[in-house]
Amino acid sequence: MKFNKRTHTCGELREDNIDQHVVLNGWVDTRRDLGGVIFIDLRDRYGITQVVFEPTFNQSAHEIGKDLRSEYVISIEGKVRRRPAGTENPSIPTGFVDVMVEKVVILNKSLTPPFQIKDKLDVHEDIRLKYRYLDLRRKEMQDNIILRHKMYQSARSYLGANDFIEIETPVLMKSTPEGARDFLVPSRLHRGRFYALPQSPQQYKQLLMVSGFDRYFQIVKCFRDEDLRADRQPEFTQIDLEMSFVDSEDVYEMMEGLMKRLFKDIKGYDLQVPLPRLTFDEAMEKYGSDKPDLRFDLEMVTLNEIFEETEFKVFKDTLNNNGIITGLLAAGCGDYTRNQLDVLTDFVKKLGAGGLIWMRVKEDGLEAPIAKFLSDNEKSELKRKLNASAGDLIFILSGPRLKALSIMGSLRLEMAKRMNLIGDNIEPKLVWITDFPLLEWDDETHRYYAMHHPFTSPNLEDLELLSDDPGKVKARAYDLVYNGNEIAGGSIRIHDAKLQGKMFDALGISNEEAETKFGFLMNAFKYGAPPHGGIAFGFDRLAMLFANQDSIREVIAFPKTSSGMSLMDESPSIVDESQLKELHIKIK
Amino acid sequence: MKFNKRTHTCGELREDNIDQHVVLNGWVDTRRDLGGVIFIDLRDRYGITQVVFEPTFNQSAHEIGKDLRSEYVISIEGKVRRRPAGTENPSIPTGFVDVMVEKVVILNKSLTPPFQIKDKLDVHEDIRLKYRYLDLRRKEMQDNIILRHKMYQSARSYLGANDFIEIETPVLMKSTPEGARDFLVPSRLHRGRFYALPQSPQQYKQLLMVSGFDRYFQIVKCFRDEDLRADRQPEFTQIDLEMSFVDSEDVYEMMEGLMKRLFKDIKGYDLQVPLPRLTFDEAMEKYGSDKPDLRFDLEMVTLNEIFEETEFKVFKDTLNNNGIITGLLAAGCGDYTRNQLDVLTDFVKKLGAGGLIWMRVKEDGLEAPIAKFLSDNEKSELKRKLNASAGDLIFILSGPRLKALSIMGSLRLEMAKRMNLIGDNIEPKLVWITDFPLLEWDDETHRYYAMHHPFTSPNLEDLELLSDDPGKVKARAYDLVYNGNEIAGGSIRIHDAKLQGKMFDALGISNEEAETKFGFLMNAFKYGAPPHGGIAFGFDRLAMLFANQDSIREVIAFPKTSSGMSLMDESPSIVDESQLKELHIKIK
Repeated sequence: MKFNKRTHTCGELREDNIDQHVVLNGWVDTRRDLGGVIFIDLRDRYGITQVVFEPTFNQSAHEIGKDLRSEYVISIEGKVRRRPAGTENPSIPTGFVDVMVEKVVILNKSLTPPFQIKDKLDVHEDIRLKYRYLDLRRKEMQDNIILRHKMYQSARSYLGANDFIEIETPVLMKSTPEGARDFLVPSRLHRGRFYALPQSPQQYKQLLMVSGFDRYFQIVKCFRDEDLRADRQPEFTQIDLEMSFVDSEDVYEMMEGLMKRLFKDIKGYDLQVPLPRLTFDEAMEKYGSDKPDLRFDLEMVTLNEIFEETEFKVFKDTLNNNGIITGLLAAGCGDYTRNQLDVLTDFVKKLGAGGLIWMRVKEDGLEAPIAKFLSDNEKSELKRKLNASAGDLIFILSGPRLKALSIMGSLRLEMAKRMNLIGDNIEPKLVWITDFPLLEWDDETHRYYAMHHPFTSPNLEDLELLSDDPGKVKARAYDLVYNGNEIAGGSIRIHDAKLQGKMFDALGISNEEAETKFGFLMNAFKYGAPPHGGIAFGFDRLAMLFANQDSIREVIAFPKTSSGMSLMDESPSIVDESQLKELHIKIK
Repeated sequence: MKFNKRTHTCGELREDNIDQHVVLNGWVDTRRDLGGVIFIDLRDRYGITQVVFEPTFNQSAHEIGKDLRSEYVISIEGKVRRRPAGTENPSIPTGFVDVMVEKVVILNKSLTPPFQIKDKLDVHEDIRLKYRYLDLRRKEMQDNIILRHKMYQSARSYLGANDFIEIETPVLMKSTPEGARDFLVPSRLHRGRFYALPQSPQQYKQLLMVSGFDRYFQIVKCFRDEDLRADRQPEFTQIDLEMSFVDSEDVYEMMEGLMKRLFKDIKGYDLQVPLPRLTFDEAMEKYGSDKPDLRFDLEMVTLNEIFEETEFKVFKDTLNNNGIITGLLAAGCGDYTRNQLDVLTDFVKKLGAGGLIWMRVKEDGLEAPIAKFLSDNEKSELKRKLNASAGDLIFILSGPRLKALSIMGSLRLEMAKRMNLIGDNIEPKLVWITDFPLLEWDDETHRYYAMHHPFTSPNLEDLELLSDDPGKVKARAYDLVYNGNEIAGGSIRIHDAKLQGKMFDALGISNEEAETKFGFLMNAFKYGAPPHGGIAFGFDRLAMLFANQDSIREVIAFPKTSSGMSLMDESPSIVDESQLKELHIKIK
């Protein structure tokens, strides 16, 4: 099909172009037939230009104009004119001109799309995913994808300027089933053997430090075969990086520079650095989360010392079991009804709490079911410590430390919503979380697991605890949190073979097992590994936050559903028996 | 392990830094103990600095200096001094200074490496691959990887500046067994179903054009499960891109800009554009290859018309069967011995030729086994057409067109080597190959295959041939060739559902099969697909050529062997039975 090449995009024409002869290519966005004169908004990625088919101006173009429908692809030639006075559209930059059409070629017709190509679409997401190629035609989605493009360029430019070398690591790698589940790829050339898709390039980037690359980065696809939660994808993108001869401070500084650059380039916002920091313990005690949302205060308060001498059995038991009593003040919520309080009690019960203690703060004391169990001193200390005034509402939870804190953290978020504490144009709040526990105990398998991964370095001052009391050891690990979302996590790594051995001991990983799974990394460390550390950003989530979206699927061109299906091509799909035969596998 | 942060890299100190107190971190490259004074070349990615341990300067540092060995990682503090007169090393930029060590910390020891960390290494590649982390410590390899990094940055910057949007396409996609073999990934959540790894993002990038993204690019990993040839990798990297509302000319121009930019940024070379072009037919007739090496002439000449009336049976049969008679003049090679000519005859026989006709050009005629079968007129025409003089050697091959031409093409390359026609500092030669056949006939399966892929548009003037004589149809396809290597290939695509249907007919793909395999793409085309086309660059090969290497493994950080093994981690590997069970597969 022959057509004239466009002289301009549909977002380009201005009053300067008036009287010029132009060619535009694009999609019919809307078409209005005003009794003889046909107006079409012609659309491409760059914008919209109105083109006009007038029978007195060009009869044959007007004839074809009658046949045009939404989403037809056309090429038009014509003359730019100033729009008649009163018909300008100042809301778009091309709105002061239109094009009088002299010639039109239909490049492709279109069926009526299953939904309109417009923003604020109200159709089920499954339909959008099935027709993703049409969904992506909507300006909202194009803006998201273009924002993502700018993030790639901005991040790479910053990292390149800071001497980071982009290095591609293998996608077909060795299965190391520590952490999440691997996706496997059967080998045809080696019967009975499998590659795994990388959960992250962790081991490779550490090897690159052993190689002396000093600073590595990659924006890279990673894969986890998990039971998918609402906003997880089996394949996801990370900004992955690693640095040699550094400690945590160097990583913080470099990453704060990256965030500053991204905020500036993408959102035009001047991020103030250095960013604040909270230790894991502080974050848990004040916000009940290792990814606290700091856009509002609403801090939790640990009340243990108030109740050291308490007669109230619930608190007494908690303290005897090394648990925690944590309180939250909901200022001005003293008028919550019993029904509202029941709903909140159900909310925390669903999260595993035994119940929710609440108290209405009155001028003359505390009104609460448990009030009678507390001493006057306890009540007045409680008010003082929580800074409570008449009309406020107090919540208290008690129980095992991390459990009670994180349930209160959820209640904190819930109350922030109910109290409408997150304004629309509130400043972004970023915070480093530091000093994570190195290990997590798993009651089911009766062993410790690495909270980050088995290569994370313990805090140097905790080294001797590693064999005696591993649960107490803190890690040189850090997360970066943005408005209550974890956007990055990393650590200083173990670069010493001996310390790595101790770590495997603590994890209950035998020498033999370590050799099989990580032998090549352990070997590499014998040949002069430098001190090193790094971090990885969840790129999809970061893009989602920058785009002010609620789901990462809004910033991924071709996402999968929560069960890992692509509704557009219906993968995963059934394959030919002959393909399986070649791979030496069969379905069981 | 506590250590001081470096104040400078090992490539940074100059005479300006003399008398400064500095900290360097790096690897012990070489160590010389000159009876008391120890000199160490300290190495990092950025360079080498000599550091000096002198007992009279610092006794305790000198003591530790005695223990240092190659590849130890150390941190030193000391004072920069001018090297004593006569001991400067002008071959490195840091060679006029050294650092008198006041303090040294051993950050990590090293076993003796299995090979020296030096350029021009003479060990088996398998050893290099097993210890890749050490191989990558060598400057040669670091330079290759850094060159590759610069190529990424340069290509992305050019494409970004030209309105291309970087969009990630899925790695877990649908298996479409047309073309090479897919790598499959069993689905755990959907028993008996499989994802495939992309052989290229071809269908996605066409969908993105349907979505109106206008210009897309991605530097992306692709996967082919082929029986690996020497220089193939199961995973490889492409610069993939696609443009809307374009014809071939637009693609040529944009890609010539990309190559110009890459040559400038990476090699400091001013590439002249536009690049020359050859049709597939011209390239085959003149160079016997669709990726001709134009760094030397040595053109082949088609001799059919000389022998139209010939009595020589071999030529006569060839002409009767629509074959070709092709000649090559090896100037000055008339003194080749019978033995040399036998070797060359074996060379073409191995490629499938029945034999090789050769003729020594003498003052008084042609000396050749077949001379007696040729007429005087034929002989003199032959000399005239090949522009042959006494002392030259003539080769002739005859047979089926493409076969004879490509064997002669191989002989052409062989002779260029023997005649030493490729100088060392010869200019790079790039050429577009155009007008490829759309389809290739396969004798085994008795059907046509798409020479590029089934979405390639036929030349518009050949449309009616598609049903009548499909083998004659030329495609709107193009390759870019650099010094005899195909570095990119692409085409203008079919954007019209009807034409695509005809194409499937020609390929013997039924409607049903097309629906199953490409249904979502065909569907997308019903909703307003713009005219579009694109191209993909073999990034590994391009990096190899820019780095003046002979193997793509030299520019890939962690490559696999020709049987798809990673010698470093021994993947693919045996996995736990429980993993297979979860994936509903078993080994057969």
